[in-house]
Amino acid sequence: MAKDNAFVNQIADIETDFPRWYTDVVVKTELVDYGPVKGTMVIRPYGYAIWENIQRELDARFKATGHKNAYFPLLIPYSFMTREAEHVEGFAPEVAVVTVGGGETLAEPLVIRPTSETVIGEMYSKWLQSYRDLPILINQWANVVRWEKTTRPFLRTSEFLWQEGHTAHATEEEAMEETMKMLGVYKEFAETCLAIPVFTGRKTEKEKFAGAVATFGMEAMMHDGKSLQAGTSHYLGQNFAKAFDIKFLDKDGTHKYAYTTSWGVSTRLIGALIMAHGDARGLVLPPVVAPVQAVIVPIAAKKEGVVEAAAALKAELCAAGIRAEADFSDNSPGWKFNEWEMKGVPVRIEIGPRDIEAGKIVLVRRDTHEKSEAPLQAAPAAVQALLGSVQANLLERARKRKEERVVTAEDMNGLLQGVEGGNFVKAGWCGCRECEDKIKEQTAASARVLVEGEHAGKCVCCGKEAKHVVLFARAY
Amino acid sequence: MAKDNAFVNQIADIETDFPRWYTDVVVKTELVDYGPVKGTMVIRPYGYAIWENIQRELDARFKATGHKNAYFPLLIPYSFMTREAEHVEGFAPEVAVVTVGGGETLAEPLVIRPTSETVIGEMYSKWLQSYRDLPILINQWANVVRWEKTTRPFLRTSEFLWQEGHTAHATEEEAMEETMKMLGVYKEFAETCLAIPVFTGRKTEKEKFAGAVATFGMEAMMHDGKSLQAGTSHYLGQNFAKAFDIKFLDKDGTHKYAYTTSWGVSTRLIGALIMAHGDARGLVLPPVVAPVQAVIVPIAAKKEGVVEAAAALKAELCAAGIRAEADFSDNSPGWKFNEWEMKGVPVRIEIGPRDIEAGKIVLVRRDTHEKSEAPLQAAPAAVQALLGSVQANLLERARKRKEERVVTAEDMNGLLQGVEGGNFVKAGWCGCRECEDKIKEQTAASARVLVEGEHAGKCVCCGKEAKHVVLFARAY
Repeated sequence: MAKDNAFVNQIADIETDFPRWYTDVVVKTELVDYGPVKGTMVIRPYGYAIWENIQRELDARFKATGHKNAYFPLLIPYSFMTREAEHVEGFAPEVAVVTVGGGETLAEPLVIRPTSETVIGEMYSKWLQSYRDLPILINQWANVVRWEKTTRPFLRTSEFLWQEGHTAHATEEEAMEETMKMLGVYKEFAETCLAIPVFTGRKTEKEKFAGAVATFGMEAMMHDGKSLQAGTSHYLGQNFAKAFDIKFLDKDGTHKYAYTTSWGVSTRLIGALIMAHGDARGLVLPPVVAPVQAVIVPIAAKKEGVVEAAAALKAELCAAGIRAEADFSDNSPGWKFNEWEMKGVPVRIEIGPRDIEAGKIVLVRRDTHEKSEAPLQAAPAAVQALLGSVQANLLERARKRKEERVVTAEDMNGLLQGVEGGNFVKAGWCGCRECEDKIKEQTAASARVLVEGEHAGKCVCCGKEAKHVVLFARAY
Repeated sequence: MAKDNAFVNQIADIETDFPRWYTDVVVKTELVDYGPVKGTMVIRPYGYAIWENIQRELDARFKATGHKNAYFPLLIPYSFMTREAEHVEGFAPEVAVVTVGGGETLAEPLVIRPTSETVIGEMYSKWLQSYRDLPILINQWANVVRWEKTTRPFLRTSEFLWQEGHTAHATEEEAMEETMKMLGVYKEFAETCLAIPVFTGRKTEKEKFAGAVATFGMEAMMHDGKSLQAGTSHYLGQNFAKAFDIKFLDKDGTHKYAYTTSWGVSTRLIGALIMAHGDARGLVLPPVVAPVQAVIVPIAAKKEGVVEAAAALKAELCAAGIRAEADFSDNSPGWKFNEWEMKGVPVRIEIGPRDIEAGKIVLVRRDTHEKSEAPLQAAPAAVQALLGSVQANLLERARKRKEERVVTAEDMNGLLQGVEGGNFVKAGWCGCRECEDKIKEQTAASARVLVEGEHAGKCVCCGKEAKHVVLFARAY
C-alpha cells in the first residue's frame, strides 16, 4: 500500500544513529506499525509474512523431533502464578490483569499469560498418570502479554507472538537431553534460515528464567556489536512438577514427579534479522524467510511486450516455487530500485525491450549489489542459484563479524573498551552476583552465556580465582 | 497419551442423549479438555491437528483470492468499542476488561478483543490515503474472548480461535462483491474439506452482526436436526468507516469514506464436524481434515515380521503423503479397533501373518464399516482411493439429510412440528421483529437465513402478506 504523496525513502544513518535507523526501517518498509495501546505493535502483511516463513520452518523442525501442537487458554487464575516462588517474583510485576468479565467483577482476577508453564502444568498433572504417558512433547503457537515500560517494535513489546514448547519426562537425563536438543534446533534454524550464527550456552543465575533450574540461550551479534537474546531453552527440573503436582506411576510402582522443560522463540527474531543483516539502504532479508525473494522491475514498461514479458516471467518463477513479484506501479525504475532495496528483497530482476530482444534478464543481488545477466529461458534456475548464493553470503558475512568481534579482557578497563568498541568480550568471572552486578553497572554489559571448555583465569572484576569464562556484551 | 488404567470406551447413546454423546466424545477422544478458568477450553493435540488442517486449507483459499495475513493487538482501548453505536450494544456486555497492567491501575481500561473491527478500523484510517491503496485485503488468525454464561467445548467458549478477514473498498459494489465472494469461499471449503453441505443466505436484522449493514451466514445441519452457524460474512457499509474515519482521496479529487467488510470462521467448525458426521461409535472424520487418515493395526503382532511389515507400510503410506499411524501399543486388536473407531480415523488397515504371506492388507472404512482387501504392493493407491471414497460418501450422506429434512410450514403448529421432528422449516415471514420473537418463544426456532427466489405466501405467525421465505431451525 504505497502512499499517494511522496514516498519518503529516507532513513537515518546506520553507523551514526543505529536506533533511529532501526525504527525508520521497520516503519517505512511497512513491517510494523504502532498499535493504539502504548507498547503494542501491529504486524503488517510484509512483517507477518516473515513470521509465517519462520513458523513454517520451525514447525517442521518441531514435528520432526516428535512434538505436537496444542492450544492452552490465554487467561490464567492469578493464584496459579504464586505457586512457584521464583516464577511469581519474576512475572507478577509485569502481568496484565483482567478484573471484569461480562459486566461483573470477577471473584478471582485473571492474568493474561506472560508464559504458560503454570496453566500447562495444571493440565499435565491431570493428563499424566503412568510412565507410559511420558514423554509429553507439546508446543503452542500463541500471543503473550508482558507489561513493559520501554518498548521497541519486535524487540520488546507488551504483546508479542511466540511459540512455547512444554515437555515432561520420566528422568532428569531425558529432560536435560530435550533442553539441549531444542537449543540445537534453534541454533541450526538460526544459521540455516535466518543466516545468523549464534553463541549458545548456559545463562547465569541472574539471567535465567524465573522458575528454571537452568536456562540455555542463544545470542546473536547485531550490526552495532550488541547482543540479542534470540531464543531460550529451560531445564525446569521438578520445580513446576512440584508446584502443580505433575506426577506419574513409574514402572517400579511408586509415584514420582516428572521433570519438565520449556523453550521458546518469538517475533523478536524479526528484530534480530533486521539488525543482523541490514545496511545503509535498509533491510537485507535472507532468501529463506524473505516474503518476496525476487522482484521484477520492467524497464521502459510502456514499450510493447515489456509488461507481458515481466508478467510471464513472474508466473514462471512462481511456478518454480520462487516467491516473486513484479512491480507494475507508475513509479520510475529508479524509484522502484530504491524502494525494493529498502524492503530488502534478495534479488532484483530488470527486464526491458533490449533484454527481451537479446533473450536475457539483468539480475542484481541485494547483499553485494553485484549485477549479472542470465538467459531469459533459464531464469528460474539462475534466480534459484543466486538466492542460494545470497543466503550463503549473508551467513558467511555474519559469521565473519561474529568471529572478528570477540575480544578477551583481563580487567574492567579491557572489558569496558571491548564493549565500547562494539565487541563481545570473553572474561573470567568468580561466579558471585556482586561482581556480575558491578560489571553491569560499570560497563553496561551483561553476562550473555557461560563459555565451556576454556581456562577461566582470574575474575575480571574482583581478581579472585574465576569459576567460569563468560561472554559479556551489551544487549537488547 | 492413553491412560494406564482401563480406557473407558463408553459414550452416551447418540439418539437418545445427543448432548451427552457430544461431551463424552470430545473429551474421551482427547480433542479437548476443560481449562481451569470457567468456560475456557484446552485444545489437545488431536483436536488442534484438525484446526491446523482447517487453517491450511482456508489460508490457501484466502491467499488465492488476494488476501494477506497480518496481526493486530489483543488489547483495545475501551473507548474504541463505543464509537459504533450498534457494535458497543452488541459486544460491551460480553467483554473481558483489563484494568491493571504492570502493577498499576490503568488510566483507561482495555478490552480483550471480542472481534477486531475497531482496532483494525483505527489502523486502516491511518494507512489509507488514496484510491490507489484500495482495496485493502487483510486476514488475521487470532484468539478472541467473549464472556459467555453457558459454554460447551468448540461450540461456545469464553476464548476461541478464529480467523477474521477485514477489507476496505472504494465502492459499495466492490465491498458487497467481496462479502459474497468470501461467503462462497466458506461454502466451497465446508463442502470440499469438511464434507458439510450448507445453507447460505442473508440474516435477519435480529440475527445480524452488531454494526453490520447486512450479515450473510452459512448454516449446517447437525445429526439432531439442529442448525449450527458455521461462518459469517458481513457487509459493513460505511458504518465503521465513519466511526473510525477510514477515508481516501478518490480519482475525482474528493475525500470519501471507504466501504468495509469482515468475515470469520472459528474453532466452532470442529464442533460442526463432530455433530455432522459422528455416529454411535464416536467421531467420523472427513479424510481431508482428519489428523490421522489411516491407522495400521498389526494382528498377532508378536509373530515374526508383523511389526516390521506394519512399520514399513506406515513409512510407505507417509511417503505417499497419507497421514498414517501404526498402533504398536500392548492393547488387543479389538481394543484398538474400538479406540480408533471412536477417534474417527477414516481408514483402518489390518495386517497379520496370513496377510503378509498372501501379500495383502485388509481395509476397513469408518463410515460404512465395509471391509475390503488390497494387494500390499498397491497399498498407497488403495488407501488413497478409499480416502477419496469416504470423503465423497460423507458429503453425500450429509447432503441427503440436508435435503430430506427440510419441510414447509403454513402455520405455527406446522413450524413447531417440523422443528420438533428434527427438521429445518421453510415458512413465510412478514418481516416484523414481533413475529420473529414470537416464533422463537413458541417453537425455540430462530430465523437462520432468508431464502431467495421462492414465493413467500403468508406469514407463518401473523398470517399477513409475507415479505420473505425464511429457513427456521433450532440452533446451537
